[in-house]
Amino acid sequence: MYDFTKPVANLVNELRKIPGIGTKSAQRIAFYLLKTDKEKVMALSESINNAMEKTRFCKICNNITEFEICEICEGKGRDITKICVVEEPFNILSIERTGLYKGMYHVLAGNLSPIRGVGPDELKISSLERRLNSGETEEVIIATSPTIEGNATAIFLFDLMKRKDIKITRIAMGLPIGADLDYVDSVTIAKSFEGRIEFK
Amino acid sequence: MYDFTKPVANLVNELRKIPGIGTKSAQRIAFYLLKTDKEKVMALSESINNAMEKTRFCKICNNITEFEICEICEGKGRDITKICVVEEPFNILSIERTGLYKGMYHVLAGNLSPIRGVGPDELKISSLERRLNSGETEEVIIATSPTIEGNATAIFLFDLMKRKDIKITRIAMGLPIGADLDYVDSVTIAKSFEGRIEFK
Repeated sequence: MYDFTKPVANLVNELRKIPGIGTKSAQRIAFYLLKTDKEKVMALSESINNAMEKTRFCKICNNITEFEICEICEGKGRDITKICVVEEPFNILSIERTGLYKGMYHVLAGNLSPIRGVGPDELKISSLERRLNSGETEEVIIATSPTIEGNATAIFLFDLMKRKDIKITRIAMGLPIGADLDYVDSVTIAKSFEGRIEFK
Repeated sequence: MYDFTKPVANLVNELRKIPGIGTKSAQRIAFYLLKTDKEKVMALSESINNAMEKTRFCKICNNITEFEICEICEGKGRDITKICVVEEPFNILSIERTGLYKGMYHVLAGNLSPIRGVGPDELKISSLERRLNSGETEEVIIATSPTIEGNATAIFLFDLMKRKDIKITRIAMGLPIGADLDYVDSVTIAKSFEGRIEFK
């Protein structure tokens, strides 16, 4: 049966390994790359190499950084008594964009997932515990996703830390702003009831 | 304000240039690449270079191929009296997968789009005309997308070819198989009425 010419089929296969890229997207990206000027593709190649060579994980929080310690861990004017635990480095940017949180972060580099073979040792949990032992931390805000795996990770972290004299919180789950109640799933509505806040 | 470290921000920007990849996808891909073993990323880099170096456009139909003339144009057992006109090389694979069509193809490499500055000269239209002048072709099947630009391109091609003694057809528009009438937009329903076929 007819298929792409081999180098293209290989490229499509390689692209499909990237999470979130399915066959159709991989095909589109492959043909975009083949149609585009060599210089533009080289610019992409270079930026990949550059990012891989120049970046590493922050020794404290596992954020991606150009230096030994990331901008936030190094940064002045941040509240060192709070640590917000996130799954991935890009979660930090999402939270920073709110402009609301001025504490520190800790990147787990994933969620617990027995199915995918990700246990506590695969995540950056022991380095979080070491940070908490320093005694500076007053609150740990668990900001893993409201998914099965994100919740399991949150519960695991809570069990691990509850004996320490530290306030442990979880970001609120509820209706997203602008949502129409009729179009929100019932689990979310249930969560928004459970987490309801008194008018003051 | 906090932003990604510069090499990562550059990578995200380069990735965003790929059509169909938005900011969030670009971030996810960037962090996937940074998290992944160097060897895997090198495999991706190599497959891009390999595909770029080893492939070119078929001299006859503009399909992507490793050779001067693509498998289909070269191939025996195909019906040379039919040419199916498509937008992009990957459209060929989609049509071939049906196993129904055994004719030839012609890749336009896009659609007419005055807004994006794509006129007839930017598409592979003159090479299509040259193919038709050989006199072998009995039918041209226009298989551009049922979008504004795809339809405009189809009409342009029809005007161009209608004086030739060649049957010109357009692939049918209508309800996709498995669709629920209540969830199909009215333009599609209108098209499926216009293109209705008599029971025989």
